[in-house]
Amino acid sequence: MQQIAFYQETFVSFLNTFSVHREPASLYNPINYILKLGGKRLRPVLTLMTAEIFNCDYKKALNAALSIEVFHNFSLIHDDIMDDAPLRRGQETVHEKWDLNTGILSGDAMLIMAYQLFENYNPETFQALAKLFSKTALEVCEGQQFDIDFETREDVTIAEYLKMIEYKTAVLIGAAMKMGAIVAQASIEDQNLIYDFGKNLGIAFQLQDDYLDAFGDPKTFGKQVGGDIIENKKTFLYLKAVEFSAEDKKTELLHLYSLNTKEHSEKIKTAKQIFISSGSAEATQKEIQNYTSKAFIVLEKLNISKENKVALRQFGEQLMNRNV
Amino acid sequence: MQQIAFYQETFVSFLNTFSVHREPASLYNPINYILKLGGKRLRPVLTLMTAEIFNCDYKKALNAALSIEVFHNFSLIHDDIMDDAPLRRGQETVHEKWDLNTGILSGDAMLIMAYQLFENYNPETFQALAKLFSKTALEVCEGQQFDIDFETREDVTIAEYLKMIEYKTAVLIGAAMKMGAIVAQASIEDQNLIYDFGKNLGIAFQLQDDYLDAFGDPKTFGKQVGGDIIENKKTFLYLKAVEFSAEDKKTELLHLYSLNTKEHSEKIKTAKQIFISSGSAEATQKEIQNYTSKAFIVLEKLNISKENKVALRQFGEQLMNRNV
Repeated sequence: MQQIAFYQETFVSFLNTFSVHREPASLYNPINYILKLGGKRLRPVLTLMTAEIFNCDYKKALNAALSIEVFHNFSLIHDDIMDDAPLRRGQETVHEKWDLNTGILSGDAMLIMAYQLFENYNPETFQALAKLFSKTALEVCEGQQFDIDFETREDVTIAEYLKMIEYKTAVLIGAAMKMGAIVAQASIEDQNLIYDFGKNLGIAFQLQDDYLDAFGDPKTFGKQVGGDIIENKKTFLYLKAVEFSAEDKKTELLHLYSLNTKEHSEKIKTAKQIFISSGSAEATQKEIQNYTSKAFIVLEKLNISKENKVALRQFGEQLMNRNV
Repeated sequence: MQQIAFYQETFVSFLNTFSVHREPASLYNPINYILKLGGKRLRPVLTLMTAEIFNCDYKKALNAALSIEVFHNFSLIHDDIMDDAPLRRGQETVHEKWDLNTGILSGDAMLIMAYQLFENYNPETFQALAKLFSKTALEVCEGQQFDIDFETREDVTIAEYLKMIEYKTAVLIGAAMKMGAIVAQASIEDQNLIYDFGKNLGIAFQLQDDYLDAFGDPKTFGKQVGGDIIENKKTFLYLKAVEFSAEDKKTELLHLYSLNTKEHSEKIKTAKQIFISSGSAEATQKEIQNYTSKAFIVLEKLNISKENKVALRQFGEQLMNRNV
């Protein structure tokens, strides 16, 4: 297994060969645009890394890795429309730079192109990849729909929230790794174990994202700290605080999350205080630990070399110790 | 080969077993809704019919037929958003009955579900079906984008228009038939011939749709006669009329197609007069004949029984002699 930076660079080089120069340009230009916007390329890196962990040349996994990245960017285009987001990675979103119809149609084309990238594999591998991809992609849609539904629901449970982030975020991390294992022709058992490793790490990752959104360092956290509080997002931090708070604090929190004020700093400050005093901040940290541990327990069961286990564990720890 | 009505009824029975009862209901209810809106079910009928023409039980082709219908309805949901259409088959469109986000996300889910239906086939058949499906689906997106681009272009050529309807409509007819042939394990040669048969018939079918939009019988034509003229749509009739007209008539037609008047009957009457006097109406009829003949020439080359050739020819003639 190589360094993460190696897989990132290799993947970006491969991605750059993928520019689509088909007609109509009005359909394909937005696709080239979003794919070149950058990002950490975490998902395709995981695919390449996993292929090598199972003793397969990462080059064989490049098309599967690209498929995952094309799908991820499809979901960003359509999600940005649904969230009415003007910016993505500091640049205009596709529907802002072009228009709604272009966003819908270019996204559709990317979903199809993600499947086409599997055509480079033999029929058995093709079917295994496409089956996993379809199941995962549908779950991502379901996760997005749960997220939308939660905005107008006042009775979201912790279990429902965890299922939502599992579907919306974590299954794609699991699938990215499993695809590397499929290409490497790892055993079905190992394929399922690496999927569970990725999925649990993905849930931990998303919970940490929720945590950092409130408690991250404004200097290093990529997004606006307190963004979820401003938007009244029912994150794990919020739901746990509601669960743990006595009636008066609960009423205060519910009231706070019914406001759409222009002045945010006081609201953010109060919400964070309740997150801490209620014990929700601590419970969130524990839950992150809990899912990280689950991932590491799965890791032990994998039929891979000791060095690769250590490398995967380090990777997981790096991901979880980020404060950005 | 059975009667068309038999395949229609059989398909609808199969479709009715497909109702999706998964969570979240907010994602799947719109899918069940659009799939039950009715329609002629032309594309899945063609898949079932073609499987039997190549000596395969139509039952084996039911999942492929359903995939084509699910894809077709996905494209209707997203197209209706792009066209801002309030009604589909006399009922509210999905984005009208629910909202924009539901329309986008339910459509996305349907595109994925269309691929999942191929999972019922063995790896070789799965790959052949999914490859054809991806190629076709991408062409349908390209056709839709060309159609959108043409709205604001004044220099659309006849060749471009024919390519647009080929991609937007005809390739899916060809693919529906080829899928039946793939499931039936027909030879690659026969698979390609039946695709060409369907594609040429599909182009003829769309040209006839253009023709009937202006010259159809208001009593039997499903849509508003003159609808394309009201919307200034650059159809084959219009483009040929521009090509054939002397300068003064051409100016009149271009002016007519720059209007967005509330009073349509005079506009429709004038446009139809120019379509006839310029020779465009006749040229369109000839082009329909031309593509129908192309389909029938391909038909002769197929390695199928004489009775099946006769049946396919009759089917094509019925489709072309419709005035609805």
